[in-house]
Amino acid sequence: MVVRIIVNLKRGVLDPQGKAVLGALQNLGFSSVKDVRVGKVIYLRLEGVDKGKVGGIVEEMCAKLLVNPVIEDYQWEIVEE
Amino acid sequence: MVVRIIVNLKRGVLDPQGKAVLGALQNLGFSSVKDVRVGKVIYLRLEGVDKGKVGGIVEEMCAKLLVNPVIEDYQWEIVEE
Repeated sequence: MVVRIIVNLKRGVLDPQGKAVLGALQNLGFSSVKDVRVGKVIYLRLEGVDKGKVGGIVEEMCAKLLVNPVIEDYQWEIVEE
Repeated sequence: MVVRIIVNLKRGVLDPQGKAVLGALQNLGFSSVKDVRVGKVIYLRLEGVDKGKVGGIVEEMCAKLLVNPVIEDYQWEIVEE
């Protein structure tokens, strides 16, 4: 199965990459863009995992490696059975 | 409104960042992970844009700045009205 995890900077945390993209879009004439935030999306292909245990495994992976809980939030979902 | 754009490497394009994450997860003992791909997620806050025109604007932004069509695919949706 494939799990998609979306990792975003928490509200209030500075996002220099987002600011750079915002500036570039406005320079290109896209004046309707008022804010940009950039995050990560991670796709994990898992094999031999019980559907009921996916949540626990994903949360452990996020806690140990994928997410910095001080500055980042995440959400996950199964995108392919 | 807020538009979320998910940008992924096309199938077949090497993903060194994904490979690094895969190796790190396996080293941590997550042996059920068989593949990892990493992409970007971009949130755009747009103001004063007709809902019917969002698609055209987003596609233009992707073509001009946000996406490299040689190696990347994208999908977008309105996540906040």
